[in-house]
Amino acid sequence: MKITLIGAGNVATSLGCALQDAGCQIAMVYSRTENSASRLASLLSVPYTISFSELPADSDIYISVLADDALLQYAPEIVKGREGAIFLHTAGSVSMDIWRLAGAENYGVLYPMQTFSQGKKVDWKSVPVFVEASALNVLQIVGNVANKLSSNVRELNSEDRCRLHIAAVFACNFANRMMAISASILNEIGVDFNVMMPLVKEMAGKLEVMSPQMAQTGPARRNDRKIMNDHLQILSSNEDWYNMYKTVSDNILKSCGNDRL
Amino acid sequence: MKITLIGAGNVATSLGCALQDAGCQIAMVYSRTENSASRLASLLSVPYTISFSELPADSDIYISVLADDALLQYAPEIVKGREGAIFLHTAGSVSMDIWRLAGAENYGVLYPMQTFSQGKKVDWKSVPVFVEASALNVLQIVGNVANKLSSNVRELNSEDRCRLHIAAVFACNFANRMMAISASILNEIGVDFNVMMPLVKEMAGKLEVMSPQMAQTGPARRNDRKIMNDHLQILSSNEDWYNMYKTVSDNILKSCGNDRL
Repeated sequence: MKITLIGAGNVATSLGCALQDAGCQIAMVYSRTENSASRLASLLSVPYTISFSELPADSDIYISVLADDALLQYAPEIVKGREGAIFLHTAGSVSMDIWRLAGAENYGVLYPMQTFSQGKKVDWKSVPVFVEASALNVLQIVGNVANKLSSNVRELNSEDRCRLHIAAVFACNFANRMMAISASILNEIGVDFNVMMPLVKEMAGKLEVMSPQMAQTGPARRNDRKIMNDHLQILSSNEDWYNMYKTVSDNILKSCGNDRL
Repeated sequence: MKITLIGAGNVATSLGCALQDAGCQIAMVYSRTENSASRLASLLSVPYTISFSELPADSDIYISVLADDALLQYAPEIVKGREGAIFLHTAGSVSMDIWRLAGAENYGVLYPMQTFSQGKKVDWKSVPVFVEASALNVLQIVGNVANKLSSNVRELNSEDRCRLHIAAVFACNFANRMMAISASILNEIGVDFNVMMPLVKEMAGKLEVMSPQMAQTGPARRNDRKIMNDHLQILSSNEDWYNMYKTVSDNILKSCGNDRL
């Protein structure tokens, strides 16, 4: 089972290593730029290309780990001349049909719901991987690859996967943005964000024993108007922080049946 | 060193148990309602009262764990007739001066920066505790109590403590609210929030090795307009989710120097 990897960013790097660790053969790596193509190819000890026309014709599976807009743009070039292979992408919010529209016959999705950054190795065995395929025999092949990577594989259609992705954006990307604003506020009083880690870990840990609704604490949950107004006054020198504090507090207040600030 | 605990909510319950575990003597528990007063008193095997006039006069330290508005209202009643004792509160955003204005001579703050919910035991040793006191000899006593509870005790003045509290609201309360919205979105496709836990743990774990700014991923970080607009379209049936998605995405876009949606 020969796999060609299209893309060389953080997800592609993590996926390429995980596939090799799981015993899969990577035939080639593509990236738009020579730098990133050669970096990942060297890491995996495989050849690379920066031209779709030079992709091998005989891989069994082509996995696109391109950014969503690049995937939409280049899918036809990836498929052309390789119509008999299986084409997969790893995007949360791109429909499986992108491959059909690009001329593929056998295709699907392998969406690893995780956050990938340079410098932080991911434990793939625990990553929830959502798969989907154009036909049952393709689904079996995609499922086999996914099961080699993770012990947490499920089937999900494109529409629900997009909603799942939105939920992941809230739970990961947006929660992380709250951390970033927290770090900026701390920076103003000369305190390092490390001080927040026991609180951050407890916030995450509580969700293993109770729902996020049950776990909610803080001034808005207590409907403590005086403290919230004191906080808004202090934040009034920074429009972005002020607006974010008010928006999220109002959202919590409303979820508890209380009036907005 | 006899301590009277004023309040019987989640923080008071956790603090009372931690103080006893650390070898401190709890003299009495106060709460506004008989139910919660008797519950915590029974847990700690100490007497309780629901009247400030019945608080003992001979405790060395009175610690208010009341909600912020109740603290502001009742501080004078707590101090009256006990002016020689030490008065502490545990609030992030209430100035130490509340005690001076209430007639106390020796007073301070013991702010445990953690989230306390029923049904989840807190590891007090790792909780960052911020202390402040009216005089050096009082600070030593407050510091001694705090050091019995936690191995992470720091001195911080009231103004910076309030900003620290705001940062904690973002990192904990607001991040948790993003989890709650995520859970509601998942609920619509019949998926349990448990599926998010590997992602939530990785989001938190990344912050041990990189800053939140560095850790940011997702459609807004990538400036992926098509996906963000697709997500907004799907969320347009729920005004709160739509507005939150747009507000936080715009905030991330702006932080990366990109135009708003």
